Amino acid sequence: MANQVDEFNAYRAKMNDKILADNNKVIKRIFNLDTNAFSAGALDVKTKELLGLVASTVLRCDDCVKYHLESCYKEGLSKEQVMETLSIATLIGGTIVIPHLRRAYEYWEELEQQNV
Amino acid sequence: MANQVDEFNAYRAKMNDKILADNNKVIKRIFNLDTNAFSAGALDVKTKELLGLVASTVLRCDDCVKYHLESCYKEGLSKEQVMETLSIATLIGGTIVIPHLRRAYEYWEELEQQNV
Amino acid sequence: MANQVDEFNAYRAKMNDKILADNNKVIKRIFNLDTNAFSAGALDVKTKELLGLVASTVLRCDDCVKYHLESCYKEGLSKEQVMETLSIATLIGGTIVIPHLRRAYEYWEELEQQNV
Amino acid sequence: MANQVDEFNAYRAKMNDKILADNNKVIKRIFNLDTNAFSAGALDVKTKELLGLVASTVLRCDDCVKYHLESCYKEGLSKEQVMETLSIATLIGGTIVIPHLRRAYEYWEELEQQNV
Amino acid sequence: MANQVDEFNAYRAKMNDKILADNNKVIKRIFNLDTNAFSAGALDVKTKELLGLVASTVLRCDDCVKYHLESCYKEGLSKEQVMETLSIATLIGGTIVIPHLRRAYEYWEELEQQNV
Amino acid sequence: MANQVDEFNAYRAKMNDKILADNNKVIKRIFNLDTNAFSAGALDVKTKELLGLVASTVLRCDDCVKYHLESCYKEGLSKEQVMETLSIATLIGGTIVIPHLRRAYEYWEELEQQNV
Repeated sequence: MANQVDEFNAYRAKMNDKILADNNKVIKRIFNLDTNAFSAGALDVKTKELLGLVASTVLRCDDCVKYHLESCYKEGLSKEQVMETLSIATLIGGTIVIPHLRRAYEYWEELEQQNV
Repeated sequence: MANQVDEFNAYRAKMNDKILADNNKVIKRIFNLDTNAFSAGALDVKTKELLGLVASTVLRCDDCVKYHLESCYKEGLSKEQVMETLSIATLIGGTIVIPHLRRAYEYWEELEQQNV
Repeated sequence: MANQVDEFNAYRAKMNDKILADNNKVIKRIFNLDTNAFSAGALDVKTKELLGLVASTVLRCDDCVKYHLESCYKEGLSKEQVMETLSIATLIGGTIVIPHLRRAYEYWEELEQQNV
Repeated sequence: MANQVDEFNAYRAKMNDKILADNNKVIKRIFNLDTNAFSAGALDVKTKELLGLVASTVLRCDDCVKYHLESCYKEGLSKEQVMETLSIATLIGGTIVIPHLRRAYEYWEELEQQNV
Repeated sequence: MANQVDEFNAYRAKMNDKILADNNKVIKRIFNLDTNAFSAGALDVKTKELLGLVASTVLRCDDCVKYHLESCYKEGLSKEQVMETLSIATLIGGTIVIPHLRRAYEYWEELEQQNV
Repeated sequence: MANQVDEFNAYRAKMNDKILADNNKVIKRIFNLDTNAFSAGALDVKTKELLGLVASTVLRCDDCVKYHLESCYKEGLSKEQVMETLSIATLIGGTIVIPHLRRAYEYWEELEQQNV
């Protein structure tokens, strides 16, 4: 059965492939940088994924939130850690973050149900 | 028949219940503050709801706009008052607000049809 | 067959008609200004449409992006020119622009397929 | 003695004069609309100024906040009414609004001291 | 000798005192929440301060960045950890973050020189 | 005599040097991309600089606006072309852009006086 997680990942993969096939050098390098920035360095991957999550949430980018929620889930971060991160986002970003918090919560539930 | 108003309220209520059941203290307090901030004080409730509406509109948060539109409707604010508020939002926030203005207008029509 | 381009234009036209029929002077004038600002002057229409596109993209307004993509398409701008504009938007606006880049790319494909 | 209020108003007037003398039609009309949007209609001027204040605050535009604070002050709005408006802005816009709240508070004090 | 760090902290403390003395309940509670949200929980204080830093940076709030930089410094986070956090902010938020990155870098240098 | 243009360029150069000397790979690559994205391709440099200007203006980044204004000036773009670009930014981004328009106008005057 189709669900949010599969649907998001399929659309994301399909469009990324098309965009990258187009050979715009600036866009390709930005996509590459994304991989670089979230690999282990002075900070570990878990911390970096939480940084990506909180930044995506205060900027109210649902698709970015979904992407980082899945990475957080796969890295083994707990629901409590994710919720504390989202609570900081809601405090800093204000109540306009709440609709994104609802959708993030729902997406996390789907990740848990699917046990990806 | 399902409509936008019922759909929004049902999803909002369902997710809020889940989030609050999770007992994250910061999030719970922000939700409580929301109730506090919009109750009568030096400004009356009508004025405060219009403040909530204009702030939500310039920040381009459709769900926040829906929420405040319904409160405005229930408080007995007129369509003209709501439209003047939205016109100020469009002027201050620019033409990127227009897509949100369209959706706000449509939602207000549903509120009137449903006479909630 | 219904598609994104027709759907967007139909909804946009229907709601604009309703909003303008409402006779809010400020909103009507902002709509008029929009026509003015994008007509030829010291800059030609093509350049202005690209300006509208990049501004809409960094502000992450999908409907505004769709509107300017169609104008760019009708003005005869090439896919390469549009992609360079979107790459500048992604660099200036950051990776949170990427989900909007995906949807813009998909919409451009529909414009090409429909040959509007 | 020079103060923030005089300094802001002098710079604002000087630059507005220069910009308007330049005869860019779109900019001139936007400046005119600004006057229109905040005059009495279905909503009174006091309410509209508070709408302008809360919108400017959540969008974190210090100069816009200063402008609307002075209008609020001249319209006879009380400090309590202004503070309730700013509290709604802080709740909706989040703690990133706080630095702007500090500067708004300071500016209001100068308006009171100067009794403009 | 006066420097940025002392100047920022003095102004911040002075204005916070005034604002809190004013007894606006919503504002007071938001200030309290700020203390709560950044204390140890499922995440440690260091991680939370980095979350506050990255969120402040992508939202381009210089004063918020300064505040979290000082907390990061006092918590013993290294320059490398702070720079990786700021690099993620620049990637997610785009090149418009760079002017804030410059000021953040300068502020961190002052924190190191002052050894607060 | 010190002026805004020299001051901005000196600070920008000094801090960029420090940041790049720090060898954070992600940041260095973003700086490099900036050079790439604005060089001639399917669009010429003049058009790209106007794209950078309008994007910086709607995102209300004064330093980014200054940077692109100087590039526009050096590329030989006329004041009318720059003003039309800024008028589109003000329309799309709304009246909160006006304070940035004032500062942009002032900076352009300094560029003309200095004939850099």
